[in-house]
Amino acid sequence: MCGIVGISNHPEAAKLAFLGLYALQHRGEEACGIVSYDGKKIYAEKSTGLVADFFDEKALAQLHGSFAVAHTRYSTTGSSSAKNTQPFLATHKGRPIAIAHNGNLTNTEELHKELEDAGSIFQTSMDSEAIVHLLAKTKNGDLKNWMAHALKQLRGAFSIICLVEDVLIAARDSYGFRPLCLGKKDTAYVLASETCAFDLIGAEFIREIEPGEIVLIKDGKVESLFFVEQGKEKKSQCIFENIYFARPDSHIFNDNVYLVRKRLGAQLAKEHPVKADFVMSIPDSGNYAALGYAQASGLPLEIAMIRNHYIGRTFIQPVQFLREFRVRVKLNPIRDVLKGKKVVVVEDSIVRGTTSRSRVEELRKAGAKEIHFRVSCPPIRHPCFYGIDFPSKAELIASTKSLKEVAEFIRADSLEYLSLNGMLSVMRDGGQFCHACFDGTYPEMIPQNANKYLLEGGA
Amino acid sequence: MCGIVGISNHPEAAKLAFLGLYALQHRGEEACGIVSYDGKKIYAEKSTGLVADFFDEKALAQLHGSFAVAHTRYSTTGSSSAKNTQPFLATHKGRPIAIAHNGNLTNTEELHKELEDAGSIFQTSMDSEAIVHLLAKTKNGDLKNWMAHALKQLRGAFSIICLVEDVLIAARDSYGFRPLCLGKKDTAYVLASETCAFDLIGAEFIREIEPGEIVLIKDGKVESLFFVEQGKEKKSQCIFENIYFARPDSHIFNDNVYLVRKRLGAQLAKEHPVKADFVMSIPDSGNYAALGYAQASGLPLEIAMIRNHYIGRTFIQPVQFLREFRVRVKLNPIRDVLKGKKVVVVEDSIVRGTTSRSRVEELRKAGAKEIHFRVSCPPIRHPCFYGIDFPSKAELIASTKSLKEVAEFIRADSLEYLSLNGMLSVMRDGGQFCHACFDGTYPEMIPQNANKYLLEGGA
Amino acid sequence: MCGIVGISNHPEAAKLAFLGLYALQHRGEEACGIVSYDGKKIYAEKSTGLVADFFDEKALAQLHGSFAVAHTRYSTTGSSSAKNTQPFLATHKGRPIAIAHNGNLTNTEELHKELEDAGSIFQTSMDSEAIVHLLAKTKNGDLKNWMAHALKQLRGAFSIICLVEDVLIAARDSYGFRPLCLGKKDTAYVLASETCAFDLIGAEFIREIEPGEIVLIKDGKVESLFFVEQGKEKKSQCIFENIYFARPDSHIFNDNVYLVRKRLGAQLAKEHPVKADFVMSIPDSGNYAALGYAQASGLPLEIAMIRNHYIGRTFIQPVQFLREFRVRVKLNPIRDVLKGKKVVVVEDSIVRGTTSRSRVEELRKAGAKEIHFRVSCPPIRHPCFYGIDFPSKAELIASTKSLKEVAEFIRADSLEYLSLNGMLSVMRDGGQFCHACFDGTYPEMIPQNANKYLLEGGA
Amino acid sequence: MCGIVGISNHPEAAKLAFLGLYALQHRGEEACGIVSYDGKKIYAEKSTGLVADFFDEKALAQLHGSFAVAHTRYSTTGSSSAKNTQPFLATHKGRPIAIAHNGNLTNTEELHKELEDAGSIFQTSMDSEAIVHLLAKTKNGDLKNWMAHALKQLRGAFSIICLVEDVLIAARDSYGFRPLCLGKKDTAYVLASETCAFDLIGAEFIREIEPGEIVLIKDGKVESLFFVEQGKEKKSQCIFENIYFARPDSHIFNDNVYLVRKRLGAQLAKEHPVKADFVMSIPDSGNYAALGYAQASGLPLEIAMIRNHYIGRTFIQPVQFLREFRVRVKLNPIRDVLKGKKVVVVEDSIVRGTTSRSRVEELRKAGAKEIHFRVSCPPIRHPCFYGIDFPSKAELIASTKSLKEVAEFIRADSLEYLSLNGMLSVMRDGGQFCHACFDGTYPEMIPQNANKYLLEGGA
Repeated sequence: MCGIVGISNHPEAAKLAFLGLYALQHRGEEACGIVSYDGKKIYAEKSTGLVADFFDEKALAQLHGSFAVAHTRYSTTGSSSAKNTQPFLATHKGRPIAIAHNGNLTNTEELHKELEDAGSIFQTSMDSEAIVHLLAKTKNGDLKNWMAHALKQLRGAFSIICLVEDVLIAARDSYGFRPLCLGKKDTAYVLASETCAFDLIGAEFIREIEPGEIVLIKDGKVESLFFVEQGKEKKSQCIFENIYFARPDSHIFNDNVYLVRKRLGAQLAKEHPVKADFVMSIPDSGNYAALGYAQASGLPLEIAMIRNHYIGRTFIQPVQFLREFRVRVKLNPIRDVLKGKKVVVVEDSIVRGTTSRSRVEELRKAGAKEIHFRVSCPPIRHPCFYGIDFPSKAELIASTKSLKEVAEFIRADSLEYLSLNGMLSVMRDGGQFCHACFDGTYPEMIPQNANKYLLEGGA
Repeated sequence: MCGIVGISNHPEAAKLAFLGLYALQHRGEEACGIVSYDGKKIYAEKSTGLVADFFDEKALAQLHGSFAVAHTRYSTTGSSSAKNTQPFLATHKGRPIAIAHNGNLTNTEELHKELEDAGSIFQTSMDSEAIVHLLAKTKNGDLKNWMAHALKQLRGAFSIICLVEDVLIAARDSYGFRPLCLGKKDTAYVLASETCAFDLIGAEFIREIEPGEIVLIKDGKVESLFFVEQGKEKKSQCIFENIYFARPDSHIFNDNVYLVRKRLGAQLAKEHPVKADFVMSIPDSGNYAALGYAQASGLPLEIAMIRNHYIGRTFIQPVQFLREFRVRVKLNPIRDVLKGKKVVVVEDSIVRGTTSRSRVEELRKAGAKEIHFRVSCPPIRHPCFYGIDFPSKAELIASTKSLKEVAEFIRADSLEYLSLNGMLSVMRDGGQFCHACFDGTYPEMIPQNANKYLLEGGA
Repeated sequence: MCGIVGISNHPEAAKLAFLGLYALQHRGEEACGIVSYDGKKIYAEKSTGLVADFFDEKALAQLHGSFAVAHTRYSTTGSSSAKNTQPFLATHKGRPIAIAHNGNLTNTEELHKELEDAGSIFQTSMDSEAIVHLLAKTKNGDLKNWMAHALKQLRGAFSIICLVEDVLIAARDSYGFRPLCLGKKDTAYVLASETCAFDLIGAEFIREIEPGEIVLIKDGKVESLFFVEQGKEKKSQCIFENIYFARPDSHIFNDNVYLVRKRLGAQLAKEHPVKADFVMSIPDSGNYAALGYAQASGLPLEIAMIRNHYIGRTFIQPVQFLREFRVRVKLNPIRDVLKGKKVVVVEDSIVRGTTSRSRVEELRKAGAKEIHFRVSCPPIRHPCFYGIDFPSKAELIASTKSLKEVAEFIRADSLEYLSLNGMLSVMRDGGQFCHACFDGTYPEMIPQNANKYLLEGGA
Repeated sequence: MCGIVGISNHPEAAKLAFLGLYALQHRGEEACGIVSYDGKKIYAEKSTGLVADFFDEKALAQLHGSFAVAHTRYSTTGSSSAKNTQPFLATHKGRPIAIAHNGNLTNTEELHKELEDAGSIFQTSMDSEAIVHLLAKTKNGDLKNWMAHALKQLRGAFSIICLVEDVLIAARDSYGFRPLCLGKKDTAYVLASETCAFDLIGAEFIREIEPGEIVLIKDGKVESLFFVEQGKEKKSQCIFENIYFARPDSHIFNDNVYLVRKRLGAQLAKEHPVKADFVMSIPDSGNYAALGYAQASGLPLEIAMIRNHYIGRTFIQPVQFLREFRVRVKLNPIRDVLKGKKVVVVEDSIVRGTTSRSRVEELRKAGAKEIHFRVSCPPIRHPCFYGIDFPSKAELIASTKSLKEVAEFIRADSLEYLSLNGMLSVMRDGGQFCHACFDGTYPEMIPQNANKYLLEGGA
């Protein structure tokens, strides 16, 4: 996963882009970058690490100009880390092109072969580089058709923000796997993966970019075209964005994420009620579903585990020996609340099961008498080819174990998942989501050797 | 405020001390230090900054020995910052003495005068240095009487952990203003300001150090004596520890902090009910009182403001221009939840009022129709001489404005505070708390020039 | 200017490359990089800054494999700094290609145009990227012809070290502007700009790469071919390498640099003797010429200016106000030696004249009675298109002022330069040097718009 | 060893102190500190590490006021490093006292005992702390007598700069072991260990502080008194300052260091001539003696070893594996100069012999045929109790081996030292030096347990 931002026509474009990235930090903690343009020159500052750790006043001061495109990246593997930082930036015939990409292409291998036969060299393994090569090979009429011609050759998931000189371009694949939103701040147009970026910037949300749409922003005007025949796109938005990935204060896929999660929790309460003393979540992943469950079930909610605020979403260990204390460093159960109680623990998902297992163990140590685990989505059983970095099938616990076995593994007194239909029933656009990770029904044919893209994609 | 930790007889004393400080980080973010002792030599690592930022594996590896005392400090002013780092460490007749102090002495000036007349020189303005000078001037019989003689000369608040060679000593002033707890991990004894440190370390809570008590730990044995005549102490525990300062997962002053806060919230609902759509808190200060309010009132709880997890309790700004975005960087209200709603906002306290005002403003911008502010303690009107770093009386909003004026200042539709009696009624030991910040009834006579201690005390 | 290193077939290739760069640090302080290859994967670590500042054990540990190519770069302008770090690395048809380049091409603009018309995109403005594009466009027969075909299209100065999988390739333009040496350490072959790198590595010097030669090293075998018709190359080695740029302990262009400088100083003494008390240099630029001058003239040498060893060749100022103290921070004249004396100051060159002027001023302040300036090369009057970063003609003091005016500007009592013929007479291969910076006789036709390459070239 | 600086009455006192420390960096690389005073408050910035590494503009900007005292420290052992940073700073009766000390006391143990019996506590093991305690115990009449009374109780070596509020005080023990100089810059008075600090600051040298003298500077007036009866002091200046320690551009002990070293070299040539091809030094320790030797002997001087300018006096290794390359990283012999030659290597001293041995080995590898080692001082055989950090007697090679054995150990073809009388004969004040390290004749009785002071003294 990644977060992307674009700014057109604002005197402090880089600073707004920085704030946008800051708000989208949850979409990728590994690397970040901003490219800006001042009408003459292009400026780039990119680094591994968190947005607020890298971008200080000095770095921002060097990003001149009123146009910017920015990117924050989820973890990819090993040594490729530094060079695969986005936005990808290149020059073609004196014209700078910067691309930020969220998603994962499924025909990267074919594209590379074609391009190299024609003499292209590659400096990275990022999908965004392949896209720029496609552009460079395309005899370009006007910018719109040039872009449409290139995008038609891509397969898989891509939400793209692209800066070609002073033209800011947004595009979304015809399935609409990843979100992409258009906003406005005064006379500036703003693009971002999620609306929480607009809230921080102080921009107004206008609309989402449509699947298959290209939007060009120049001189304060917004032009739209579709690179697929309209009606032929098949909306398949990633339901996992709603369940887990997106920020609860974002409005994406035509709904508010927090409200979706509460509805999932309420539906879960209906499908799998428990007689218990109270409902709790493991902060902060299941907070919203737990609230929905509590309100629907009539059970009280308790904050029985306290999160240490000196740690971010991922705990960065300065000290090796802390590993063994890791669970407790992050979260501390409250003995006086848990002692002798029957509790419902609501989680948003179970991936490998190891985290849930250690949480259950902590709760038991703190005195909980019965622990009933409830999960606000169905069991995850299939890999994602569109950008969610699930582990391999073998590591997905629900892929290799039965419900009963999972319950035993995490040592819960009972375990229940939300049903697929129950999940879809509370979504505003029930039929328009990709839920292949639950049931394996991928919206497009996946190439046989697709596995190799899972780790090094531009996602 | 400060957090203090002591370890006796554990092969990884410094690492446990580090974990203890980590758990007590909320008690002071400005500086931290650990002193250890290996039976022959003393080792010290101290720095300004957060515990996890300073202590890396290299720093911890240099802290040899099975004895340690540690300290994390709340903000003091300016240039004195670096040298006033604790534990204070000195040598007297070849015997190393390290002291960590939480609290604030009220007779520092008299002590300094006496000591300097006798030839003492001072390197810091910390109360802990004065205590060591007192020890050095005392003709020492055995360690117990030596310590008792010195402590009798102190006035004000002090919870102390002291290491004299291999003897770990804990002491608490006769009012018991600040908490101090004794725990055990295997054969090691552990001391800490709050029990949340024991949870992280994996130690078992034994009991609190009593007001006026000195505890000496040596060779696996715990010895206790009282330096005030028993029955003469007047328990005056700081109620603000329960309301705001301590961690919700701690058990101090004979109660669990989270449960106390929920009871305060419930009492607040009884005293000041509202007709509203839902109850909310400003994360994370009022979370627990808000939950208590919601459950007692029957109103639903909503998480209508989302905290950005990439920021700690205090936001550290790498970038100057972020200041104006500061409020939103930390917290984002959810429009879809707030729009057109009447909300009850439960806060744990109002100090200057400026933060509350900006929060109310954010909620209005996000669409809230009515905002009813409820505070889970009485108005704060008086300075604290015992270690809580309230601003001056002129800056305490409740000290200069009426209830109505405060409501107008923060722009709430209504504002109500919990009553003093209501507050005390839900405390387990109602009569044994210091509540001078609310009503000005200090438990001991305050020296006329006490103000000067407010900023540079050892607190 | 730049320094380049290549290693073939050594288990600690990256560490040897690091040492090589360390020895060549004087050829470029702005940026450095090492690329290594382990038979399967390619590894790269690059950064702005000094070699020893960037490469720590962690960075070196990530550079696996027994093949390496490395680069240290002289200053280029501004924002392009970070991305223009070499070696340039790209992949073509799964084959990694890494190039390190020392020199400056004079037909970059034409090359860019041709390549972009064929669909190439550029990520940097470095000559080394253009070379890789040329390779990618070339239908490659075997590696030798593939490389020769590409190199034939280049104009200007290039000493290149290239790694194509496990084949290490060295090449030098047909004029031989920049040095490039071949050495051997055990079973490993080593390439470096200067032999001082071999001394540090512990490698044995074999020979210099010839002008117009390509050397391929694979499986412990060295193969040589010429990409220009032999006899057609016109040797034009940069004489400024001998005068100023190369390290005195290097053996390049078939001579030892220290001995060359001593001979230049001796020749200068013959051409321009002075009656004086002693000879001195400004450490450390003129040390060797001064020694030659002293020995040839019979005047005593004195070390009348002391260099501060806590400063490198370029003083890095942590503190703004130090600027005014800059001259004295670096060098301190000894009053007791200079007072009332007539001194000969021998310098290796005068570029802008401002440094010489401030040195003369310092010597006068310290009491020198007469200061006779002698320069061990002719006046520099013309720009260099082959990699030496002279300032523009307007800033070259000898280009705009007469000898007398220069003497007045630097406030010397007398000033004399070595003659062109005198200079060439002491070179081992007198007729085979480029001395265009002195007399404007460039060895090849320079394109009219050549100026634009001066700043952003790969030199 | 240490370097000390004091500034009185200059608006940029801290910046001048910084420059002074910078010039005195060679006297101590381990730690540095500046204390300043603005008439009301005292400011301190201290750290381990080099002066220019620690003091940036931010640190200097915090050192307000027109009075400053500063210190740079030579290596002491291990964990005591951070806390033993000078200047030592304390407050007595509201009066701040800051002391910077160069030298080593020989009665520290007795002083500590007396002071602790009277109730003093010690925070460091520095001699400077003991001096402040002495002051605090002294019934102070006026400042002069107060200071004199305290200094009379000290034994051993001390050059002291002390700031008591706005009075800057300098004092030197009655033997005058360590240098201390008084200078003037405009209306400001300046104190420094060596005059090279005055050159950098732009101050004029006035005179040296006399042995047994106290100088008080206040309100632009200089007052002098002697704390020993005049005529009773026995001047015993450290001759090793001239031979090795002080900077060649300094004027101390009534002579210029560079000229002294040249005279030592010339005397060495008289005592121990050789038939050889040339004279050389190992940069930069023997440069000046080598020059003196060459001029006196008529042999040519050659710069046959080149120092790498990217390394300071002590090479700081970022990379572990560099250790084996350490010798060559620092210095590279020039083969073309050394091959087949008979050389005289002039060194300023031999301590352990290991460095000389590795240098000789390098020269042989580079082709030298005969290597004749000449040392410009007598063999070092005895420990120093006055501040020079020689290794233990067992490690001093001349203490355990005969001349012949040392020659064999370092593998020189011949080895000769300068004679004691020869050495003294070229000193301007021949009879007034301490040369105990050569012949064991200490100027005062050394306490039996003196060894323990060798490592942790304030030197």
